[in-house]
Amino acid sequence: MEELKSAKNARVKEWKKLLTKKGRDQSGNYMLEGAHLIEEALKSDDIIEIMVQNNFTAIEIEQLRKFPVTLISPEISQAISATETPQGIFAVCKKRSAGVNPAVHRKLLLLDGVQDPGNIGTMIRTADAAGIDAVIFGEGTGDLYNPKVIRSAQGSHFHLQTETGSLTEWIQKLKSADIPVYGTALENASPFTEVTPTDSFALIVGNEGAGVDPANLRQTDQNLYIPLYGKSESLNVAVAAGILLYHLRKPI
Amino acid sequence: MEELKSAKNARVKEWKKLLTKKGRDQSGNYMLEGAHLIEEALKSDDIIEIMVQNNFTAIEIEQLRKFPVTLISPEISQAISATETPQGIFAVCKKRSAGVNPAVHRKLLLLDGVQDPGNIGTMIRTADAAGIDAVIFGEGTGDLYNPKVIRSAQGSHFHLQTETGSLTEWIQKLKSADIPVYGTALENASPFTEVTPTDSFALIVGNEGAGVDPANLRQTDQNLYIPLYGKSESLNVAVAAGILLYHLRKPI
Repeated sequence: MEELKSAKNARVKEWKKLLTKKGRDQSGNYMLEGAHLIEEALKSDDIIEIMVQNNFTAIEIEQLRKFPVTLISPEISQAISATETPQGIFAVCKKRSAGVNPAVHRKLLLLDGVQDPGNIGTMIRTADAAGIDAVIFGEGTGDLYNPKVIRSAQGSHFHLQTETGSLTEWIQKLKSADIPVYGTALENASPFTEVTPTDSFALIVGNEGAGVDPANLRQTDQNLYIPLYGKSESLNVAVAAGILLYHLRKPI
Repeated sequence: MEELKSAKNARVKEWKKLLTKKGRDQSGNYMLEGAHLIEEALKSDDIIEIMVQNNFTAIEIEQLRKFPVTLISPEISQAISATETPQGIFAVCKKRSAGVNPAVHRKLLLLDGVQDPGNIGTMIRTADAAGIDAVIFGEGTGDLYNPKVIRSAQGSHFHLQTETGSLTEWIQKLKSADIPVYGTALENASPFTEVTPTDSFALIVGNEGAGVDPANLRQTDQNLYIPLYGKSESLNVAVAAGILLYHLRKPI
């Protein structure tokens, strides 16, 4: 097994590039970090190579051997990590292929300009929990492969379909496939409890400040709001998504 | 109006202490920061003094004059801020007095060892939105007056009662007041949808890793879980609280 010690090595430079969107777009790869996420990735076909600190013990090295493994120094670990206290295990993964098909994927979450990586990741995790089939990343939404998104999603991005695209086009595509599309809005909207749970639906949630683009709201089948019973002016977008997704889906 | 320029001033030192729990416990005060939060605080009786950067314009200085106002330099602003890019307006506030009364406050959220400040703040905001009357901070839960908690709560800590205490005692107190107490647990629990919405209830949510203390779960009237329909292992605690609170409360 190869061992790298200097953080100035050319390969370390390549790994560091994956922490930026530009680097990920150029290579088509992204960086995964931490034992839990690597364990999830081991079940997928996405791993290209693994880097592990020479004193790392949480996962047995034997389990990793079907992939190229490089032993790295704590210094390199620090250099390629997006966290301040890296666990010492990393994987370069290829980005997931887009394959959302409205004939099959009938429960969807659409993100319209959502910017906070923690919110995006938490919504992927929530969508997974709620049995949602696909998450569509619309215009102005943060990058799925941002390390903070991946960390907040806690492995759920491996469990559902994801795709980037124009929400205007997606809304039309979903409506053509007989999937009711619900926007979220504070005005000209119905309380979410009025909707009867169904097997197929698409929910659009919007930017933390501006909400869903009005042009998209005009195309939906219905727009929903969550009543505010107290004095707060709004809900966190990930909390709102959780309340709505768990209402819209039929309990099994 | 007094103007302070040097960050080495003794008063700046006192202000900085409010960024730590020890400093807040010693003085009984905490620091509020940013235009939105100060505007919320202006409606309360909690403000002791206001510090504002000499070039700050988002709030008219006339509005602030009923409190002692100190003009501060950008350097001081940086020194007393909990953020990297301070807006330039701060208030020293006195901590809110504890006054939860189960005869009056009939909808409650109990936090059992919740640690992440962002989660705690988001839950205060969500509780406010859901019309919850009080949030009880149990053993091991982070400090309400941590700057990150206050920031995530977006002013909602002014809109409901908060109190720190022993959850074991609170559960007994609430049951004596005929308020049904619901725990959250993955095992020996019922799907939350089985509970009929009511006017009175107390919901306990737990630590991000360990959940609610089993000793507390044994004392509740019923323990609830949120079904996981996909492959994720859990939900973020703030998202879970949102789903449960909006289910438990009666829609108006």
